[in-house]
Formats: sequence, structure tokens, C-alpha cells
Amino acid sequence: MKTKAAVAWGAGKPLSIEDVDLEGPKAGEVLVEVKATGVCHTDAFTLSGDDPEGAFPAILGHEGAGVVLEVGEGVKSLKPGDHVIPLYTPECRECDYCLHPKTNLCQSIRSTQGQGLMPDGTSRFSIDGKPILHYMGCSTFSNHTVLPEIALAKVREDAPFDKICYIGCGVTTGVGAVAFDAKVEPGSNVVVFGLGGIGLNVIQGARMVGANRIVGIDINESKVEMAKKFGMTHFINPKKTENLIEAIMDLTNGGADYSFECIGNVNTMRQALECCHKGWGESIIIGVAGAGQEISTRPFQLVTGRVWRGSAFGGARGRTDVPKIVDWYMDGKINIDDLITHKMPLSDINKAFDLMHAGESIRSVVEF
Amino acid sequence: MKTKAAVAWGAGKPLSIEDVDLEGPKAGEVLVEVKATGVCHTDAFTLSGDDPEGAFPAILGHEGAGVVLEVGEGVKSLKPGDHVIPLYTPECRECDYCLHPKTNLCQSIRSTQGQGLMPDGTSRFSIDGKPILHYMGCSTFSNHTVLPEIALAKVREDAPFDKICYIGCGVTTGVGAVAFDAKVEPGSNVVVFGLGGIGLNVIQGARMVGANRIVGIDINESKVEMAKKFGMTHFINPKKTENLIEAIMDLTNGGADYSFECIGNVNTMRQALECCHKGWGESIIIGVAGAGQEISTRPFQLVTGRVWRGSAFGGARGRTDVPKIVDWYMDGKINIDDLITHKMPLSDINKAFDLMHAGESIRSVVEF
Repeated sequence: MKTKAAVAWGAGKPLSIEDVDLEGPKAGEVLVEVKATGVCHTDAFTLSGDDPEGAFPAILGHEGAGVVLEVGEGVKSLKPGDHVIPLYTPECRECDYCLHPKTNLCQSIRSTQGQGLMPDGTSRFSIDGKPILHYMGCSTFSNHTVLPEIALAKVREDAPFDKICYIGCGVTTGVGAVAFDAKVEPGSNVVVFGLGGIGLNVIQGARMVGANRIVGIDINESKVEMAKKFGMTHFINPKKTENLIEAIMDLTNGGADYSFECIGNVNTMRQALECCHKGWGESIIIGVAGAGQEISTRPFQLVTGRVWRGSAFGGARGRTDVPKIVDWYMDGKINIDDLITHKMPLSDINKAFDLMHAGESIRSVVEF
Repeated sequence: MKTKAAVAWGAGKPLSIEDVDLEGPKAGEVLVEVKATGVCHTDAFTLSGDDPEGAFPAILGHEGAGVVLEVGEGVKSLKPGDHVIPLYTPECRECDYCLHPKTNLCQSIRSTQGQGLMPDGTSRFSIDGKPILHYMGCSTFSNHTVLPEIALAKVREDAPFDKICYIGCGVTTGVGAVAFDAKVEPGSNVVVFGLGGIGLNVIQGARMVGANRIVGIDINESKVEMAKKFGMTHFINPKKTENLIEAIMDLTNGGADYSFECIGNVNTMRQALECCHKGWGESIIIGVAGAGQEISTRPFQLVTGRVWRGSAFGGARGRTDVPKIVDWYMDGKINIDDLITHKMPLSDINKAFDLMHAGESIRSVVEF
């Protein structure tokens, strides 16, 4: 079939809207009509050329929502008409990782996904017979896409595509880090470094699970109002604070029970660890640091009880947990509407990148 | 009363056997006749002068066992004749730390203990009216000593003092790190960096809880035989291995479920983290690094699911957990006898330090 897609022909070039050939689903695969997709920093990172694993030409996009049109041979858990969210972290429920209680990092299709291919080692996308690569196993910047069955979360049909697409990455990354990785208990004091889209989702996750103080840290005070709306109870601007760690300890009765780094800066990662409470404070790294950069601290910080960990896709097992997060949104436990600051048709997708780079959007959503 | 003690008059000087004046127990305190004490690297560290918190003159020693002779006003949990192990990490069961489920680092008497004083701010030891400091709240290099009630674990009376004194520090630090901090599950693959006294106790802790492979790492192959006796199943000499991390991953089906650093070297701390299994491996720092030294790694190691934590006194809550470890010893679940390589009277205590520095002992025990 033919479909309309935004193709990334090369690093640093604007996306180009093209009519693309899409092969139907093979065994274990599913054809999805994408109804809406968010535009995420990770798409921009790959498009910039800084992503060492980035390959072109490709159809980017990994934060979508849509409807199943057709299923390949052997697909049992989905049927045409089902509403789905694509998962860049799949959940096969069979690999060593899926069967381990402590991780969500299903590895069953990792090597082909990393190469921009379907599990059989080929691409479903092409133009004039030349293959176009998939991206993060999703390629939601195409109106139609093909995914493995294990990379689709089936979700309720009354949830709006233009909001729940954000659960495909940003919402889950933030809310999930609180709920599934840190397992923040009610009454905890939480500190959040960085009040961008991920930080706001960490904040509302902390509010949802009953955190006590939720302290936001950012050098940009224009973000304060929105962060308060999402549950931030206290704000510190490091540029206006002589000793950030002490200021946090003062606000949190001796340190954070949980801190989250949502920036990707190795210096704030260290601060996020060291502002944790002696004896039990845990710091969770969500932000992605630049290539080759390293975190460091004195081991005494750990020996005296702090824990340093990280989170990817919010610790969520996609097929199991993403539908729960959709419920949380539909039940009003989390707010997505206010995070989606811009909407546009596919033809304007490059504007979404411009808005992101200008710091004017929290999230732009493309509707097909 | 008068008692015999080994006094540390200053950094770098041998201990000197003296007749010391010891005041009786005040309210909440207990007079203990020390029957046996181990000599630990921490005593040597303080005696060397490298310990920034070390103060002199003092009576060192923190790894003892003995009998209660007299209790001060208000002491309820102990009576004369009770067998006890002194606790440098007390357990008051009242402070924020004791009441928190994730830590054993009771802080109730920390500031006075750090100054070498009893909780009322004075010392019970003196010579010619001049105070001699306590050490780690224990001072087990004295035949008699006074401790707060909250710093004594009551233990069964059929356990031999010359063996269970080692539970006052080394055994608990190693076995406890496995059982109480890491909570190693049966079937786990465990990697232990450093086959000294702590490493051997980690190994036998791992064996006790049903670990699968227990891989020891050391550059000194003379330690292999003893480590095998304690449960080590595989050994790697990093000096004879081209790529240590890969060698560990090969032996452990992709990486350690739990690794323990028992050396105090920031480079092996990094290796211990990075040899952990993607998705769930946890690395526990037990060794104490040199002042000012820092650990580092790429944050990607944590974001892909490894966890970095530390352990102090094996995560044991002393009054609650030390008696359990005495039971484990008496039940034959752990071996202490073979770790105690040398015994001597108090008059020969300086030989214990010589044996330690020469690497000839695992543990020397002084019997009174």
C-alpha cells in the first residue's frame, strides 16, 4: 500500500513528506493506522546526527497512537479495530529480561530494531523499491506503519489519540519512573531536576502516588507556574542559591527520599545523588548524557545508604503497564492535556522541531 | 575500677598495655567484661593516623564479645551475666533511622561516639585523672569497658567468645551485605572483588543464601584455596585476564546479579558495577576508599538497569540481627573458625597489627 510519511533523508536535514510504499504485515506483525504522534527530543537527537546509532534514510517517530488495520499470521492478541500504542521497548513475555522481576528492557528484537529493521531483518518501507528504515521499531511519523505484535499495547477505545500518543514515551518515562522504578511511597519527599516535559511527568507521578514535598529545580523560572499546576510544592533556582544541596536538605528534612534527574547533565546527576537522604535516599537518572560523559561521586555517598539507579521507559512493561497509564489519564489522575502545547498536521511537522529547539513547546502532536 | 587495656597514645605508635581507671556505668550504660576481641583493619587505619576523625589517646578495638558485669540506672534489656557483642553501629529503635525500613545507620549517639565520648559527653576511661577516649563506642582493647545499652547485642550463652567476637564487625559486614543489603536470592550469580576477610564472608554469605555461581576476583592466587573452602565456585585473576568484564560476563550468563567490592579501590568499584547484568545487576560497595577518591562510570550503565549501592555493617540492625548471625554460626551455616588464623594475649596485641600488615593473618583475636 501507499502511505504518507515524513522521511528523514539525512542528518541535519528537514523531514520531507513523501508517498511511501508500505508492505503488509508478515507473520507476527501488525499494520497500524497512526492517528497521532508526539515529536520528542529523541527524534530531534537522531535527526541532528549526534546519535551514533542513527541511520538514514528513515521514518522517525516513536510516540504514537492508532488503530489496527490488519494482522499477520499467528497474531493472537490483536485484531483489526483495536486501539494501540506502539512500544519502542516491547514486551515479548518470553525472554530472560521479560521473565526477570526487576527489568522492563525486553531484548527479544533489540538487534534488528537497533538497525532500523523488522525482526526478519528487512524493512516494510520503501520508495521506488529502495528501502527506508524503521526507527525505534515504531516509525510513527508515517500515517501507516507495521510493528511486531509484541511492540503494541492494546488500550481502551474511548481514550483520545491526540493525548494518549504522549503515553508512548514522555508520560510513561516520567510517571513510570516514579511508580514502577523508584516505587515512591506516600509521604516521600521528592526532588526533580529539570522542569521540562519529563520533569513535569515525574512531578505529577509523585503527586499521584501521594508524595509529601515535591521540590523542583530549574534555572528557568518561567517553568514554575506549570510545574506548580502539576504538583510541585517548592522551587529552587540553583543560580539564586548559594548551596543547592543544603537548600534541598533544609526543605526535605535532611534530604530527598527520591530524586530524579530529568536533564541529562552529569553535574546535576551528581547533585541529584548527593541531595538524597543519608541512609535511604535513592536517585534515579532519567536524562540522557552526552556521549562519553561520566558521572562521579565519593563512594562514601553510597556506603552511607544512598542508592544510584536509572530508568528507561519509566520501568514500564509496555503491554502490561501502558494500558494502566491510559486509565490513569482517563480517570483524571494525571494531566496530559496541558502538556500538549501545540498540534499540527503532518505537513507542518518540521515546525514541531523548531518549536522544541526554541523552547516554546512542551509537546507538539501531529494529527493525521 | 582498674582494668588492663592497650592504649593508643598517638598516631603511628605501638599500643601500650596500661592499667586504666574505668568509671562504672551511668544511666543507660552497661559495664562489660571483654572476653575476646578481633583486631580489624579499621583499628589499624585509625592507629596509622590516616583516619581524619582519629583522636588520641584512645582505647581502640570494636570487634569484641563479653559478659555484662553491671548495668546503670534504667537499663532494662540487659542484666549481669548476659553475653553480649558490642555494636559500633547501635540500634536505639527510636530515631528516624531506626524507624525507617531501609537503613541500619542509627544516629542517636553518633556525634558523641565520633568524638570518642559516651552519650553524656564524657569518657569513662582515665589514667592519673586524665581522660582516655573511647573508640567507635566500643574500646574492646580493654578488658573492661562501658557501653550504652543500645550498643550491645545480647547473644546466646553457648557461643564461644573467641569466635563470635568476629561477628562484631567482619563477619556481619560481609555476610550481612549479602543477606540484609543486597538480599541475594537463591540461584543468583555473585561476583566478589577481593578475597580478604570481608570477601570471604561475602562468599560464605552468598553460599548460605543459595547463590549459583560465586566468582572471586583477586590478584593474589594464594587466597584461592581458602576462598573455595568458603564457597567460591570460580576464580579470575585480573592480571592474567585480558578483559575482566568480558570474562565475568562469560562466567555469569551475561553479568553478575550481585557484585561486591571488598577492597576499597575506586577502579575495582567501577569494574564491580560494570560487570553487573544489564537490566537488574546490583553492585554493593563495602570497601572504604582513600580520602577524596571518587568513583565514576557512564550514566548509561545505570539507565540500562544496573544499581549502585553501598553497605555499612552489613546492613545489620545490631541488636536484632547480630544474634541471628550468632545462630547461623552455631548452626554451622557459616564458618568463623577457619577465619581466625591467630590468637594471642593482650600483651601481644601489637603482633596482631604486624601480622595484618604482613598479610599473614585473616583475623587475629586477642583473648583476655
